Amino acid sequence: MNQETIQALVNPGSIALIGVPRGLKAGKVFLLGLLDLGYSGDLYLVHPSAEAIDGIKTHQSLTDIPGEVEMVIVLSPKESIWEVLDACAAKKVTVVVLYTSGFSELGGGHDRRDEERMREIARSGGFRIIGPNCMGIYSPGASLAPFPMMPRVAGNIGFLTQSGSLMTLFINACALKQLHFHSSISYGNSCDIGLAELLEWMYTDEQVGVICSYTEGLEDPGALHDVFKRHAWRKPLVMWKVGSTDAGGRAAASHTGSLTGKAHLWDALFRQFGIISVSDIEEMLDTVMACSRFSRSGRGRVVIISGPGGPAVSASDAVERNGLEMATLSESSRKRLENILPPTGTSRGNPVDVGLGASFELGFYLDTLEVLIEDAGIDALVILGGGISDDMNRTYVDGLIRVKEKTTKDLIVVTYPGFMQRDEILAPLHAHGIPVYSTPERAMKAYARLLRFERFQEGRISAVSCSR
Amino acid sequence: MNQETIQALVNPGSIALIGVPRGLKAGKVFLLGLLDLGYSGDLYLVHPSAEAIDGIKTHQSLTDIPGEVEMVIVLSPKESIWEVLDACAAKKVTVVVLYTSGFSELGGGHDRRDEERMREIARSGGFRIIGPNCMGIYSPGASLAPFPMMPRVAGNIGFLTQSGSLMTLFINACALKQLHFHSSISYGNSCDIGLAELLEWMYTDEQVGVICSYTEGLEDPGALHDVFKRHAWRKPLVMWKVGSTDAGGRAAASHTGSLTGKAHLWDALFRQFGIISVSDIEEMLDTVMACSRFSRSGRGRVVIISGPGGPAVSASDAVERNGLEMATLSESSRKRLENILPPTGTSRGNPVDVGLGASFELGFYLDTLEVLIEDAGIDALVILGGGISDDMNRTYVDGLIRVKEKTTKDLIVVTYPGFMQRDEILAPLHAHGIPVYSTPERAMKAYARLLRFERFQEGRISAVSCSR
Repeated sequence: MNQETIQALVNPGSIALIGVPRGLKAGKVFLLGLLDLGYSGDLYLVHPSAEAIDGIKTHQSLTDIPGEVEMVIVLSPKESIWEVLDACAAKKVTVVVLYTSGFSELGGGHDRRDEERMREIARSGGFRIIGPNCMGIYSPGASLAPFPMMPRVAGNIGFLTQSGSLMTLFINACALKQLHFHSSISYGNSCDIGLAELLEWMYTDEQVGVICSYTEGLEDPGALHDVFKRHAWRKPLVMWKVGSTDAGGRAAASHTGSLTGKAHLWDALFRQFGIISVSDIEEMLDTVMACSRFSRSGRGRVVIISGPGGPAVSASDAVERNGLEMATLSESSRKRLENILPPTGTSRGNPVDVGLGASFELGFYLDTLEVLIEDAGIDALVILGGGISDDMNRTYVDGLIRVKEKTTKDLIVVTYPGFMQRDEILAPLHAHGIPVYSTPERAMKAYARLLRFERFQEGRISAVSCSR
Repeated sequence: MNQETIQALVNPGSIALIGVPRGLKAGKVFLLGLLDLGYSGDLYLVHPSAEAIDGIKTHQSLTDIPGEVEMVIVLSPKESIWEVLDACAAKKVTVVVLYTSGFSELGGGHDRRDEERMREIARSGGFRIIGPNCMGIYSPGASLAPFPMMPRVAGNIGFLTQSGSLMTLFINACALKQLHFHSSISYGNSCDIGLAELLEWMYTDEQVGVICSYTEGLEDPGALHDVFKRHAWRKPLVMWKVGSTDAGGRAAASHTGSLTGKAHLWDALFRQFGIISVSDIEEMLDTVMACSRFSRSGRGRVVIISGPGGPAVSASDAVERNGLEMATLSESSRKRLENILPPTGTSRGNPVDVGLGASFELGFYLDTLEVLIEDAGIDALVILGGGISDDMNRTYVDGLIRVKEKTTKDLIVVTYPGFMQRDEILAPLHAHGIPVYSTPERAMKAYARLLRFERFQEGRISAVSCSR
């Protein structure tokens, strides 16, 4: 994709919607999305018969629009698609988003030939296509959304997805943790612009810090391999590859017409290029949170600070099981903890058991943290705790934020299911960039995945500098 | 444990608390728990100097109490423990719950010998001990709780845990899903009553339908093996065994003085006896929900019904990856679905893609379900969907409940992170026994675990009847 295409994709100055339904049908969401986010560029509606839709004047055809059109979003039925694409060429648009479905996902060679024809029309007409069978673009910096009620705040996460519904689901789930997106592209059957090109752009765009993707399959494995070879070391890519089982492969074929490929081939590719592979939406969220929140300087030496004893044991298992290291506390830390913690019902090793009394006296948690952030042998502090009331938990959260302000070490908060998980209490932690996980297992898995990428990255960077 | 011990454990007619602090310290929670749940038996407080605590008259010693005492809860410091145990013998109590800590979890042979001495005093005094270093008993049917704000509703889940904090965390997390407990025992260092005896009771108690446990280690593997051999086929046991790594083993030793054992030995035991092994609190909750909610008659033939396409693909992966079967729809079902669903943007195979329009027209979901519950080739229906507003989601939930009332097949609702996950909207599903999971991966993993247990159970039952 050239710069003009990228600009038209994520920051178009003008958009035309073709085929917006008059009533509240599925295609209406594209208009509602743009109106809800307050898209401020030139917005045109094309409809053959309606005079206006939702109070917005319509044009009879694309070529009737007086001004320039950078992006066209096509919601028309399958039958009219060729006429629309010809009009896009005549209008000299830059990018076409094809929501229209009914092509290779139906199976059968005829429909695949349709997609080849689309690509040819785009090539000769001088425009590019996202889709068909996609939801298109979310770009909050340009107030662009294919669905209403999407988050308005922009961030540095890029999300590439073959599934449009996962775009809205994942972005909204991330918003609850105040993880925000630079942009997301739902690219569906990818008749023209596919994963490799989109990845190359996101790898090299400095506004994107972390990339994640939901991928069913792809047409050109060679192109993806090439992109990984040149760019995979630049930033973490969290990849949720589905359709690797027979049942999943059949489902993917009927969803986006994808050839999903064998799991072991994908696994080999992931290992070779440090790609972080995840297997469900929660893992993807956990890992993107790690990539967004963690400091990326640690060696994986973890200390666990816990009031409840059981979770501390399972957290210790999680550290070792994920190839991380239980930090050894310095003599000085141990001595200082002896002065802070009660002599019984606590433990000053690692895990540091601050005792059940800490639920009543939050100082046991916070004073322990103050000691441990000064211990040079520790990279990350996992805190399992909380008070016995909402008010105490608010105080606890404030205290954690004050500790975090004093340190560059990673502070990782674990809440536990049913315990201190209310969004309004946790919100300040998210706002201050402190990652929050619902179990130590999930936290350590995500942290270890990021560290493995960083080791890949360091190895790659040093290999490059040696060869120079 | 004999019947008298079991009765005193989960339904004591009288309780004495020794060592309740005057102020709001950790030990106070035991009294607050009993008052909060409204324990209606005889409740006595023993304190050497206070006249009354929280308005309740105290007794100077256990033997000063006029009436019978079935259960004694000991919160006294370590130093006074021998005097207290002697008093328990003199008073002829039935069960002693020792919250007091500072024994084998500190390490060193001396403390282990202390626990042997406790057991000997109990044996000669004619009572049994739970603990030391434990939280004791939760038994909502008898209004017994070691912590305030515990759920009041009783159910049929039994929970045995070495960690007291996990008892409260897990039970409260389950309450949010309306999964209720017959009882839970936090048994800590288990100087006397240990896991094997507790399991034997729960396996043979008809009021307990599902057992779960959090286990760090145990003193007598032979006794556990023997209990499994005789009883494991009776009901599902969901076991969260921690401390299997070196780091976790060390943490467990300082938590409950447990010898944790090698992971591969435990794994062999689990396989031999159909024990369902889980590795974190979320998996335990997911699996207990499956054991409590599912019908236990299915063969694992799953149909996926989804509006969003991406989740349907990953759900198909999850079915196959967990050894379940994608159901083949009957010809009749396919034909009926053709009449219900729009021709494009949907799929009438398995997964059944009801299309994105179903978010606006919930009838597409519900009519599809009505067809599929009549298909004899299907055991379980996984539904991924919802409407575009809270009101629509309430309608959707009502519709699912009406479908469930017409069928014995399992209905499994998947919500997705950040989407239709608000407790107040989902509550009616829980109340009607419909399991709700946050991803298809978690749902299928839990379902498959239950089915594996059922196969173990069927094999065991048929083996028993053959040999007769």
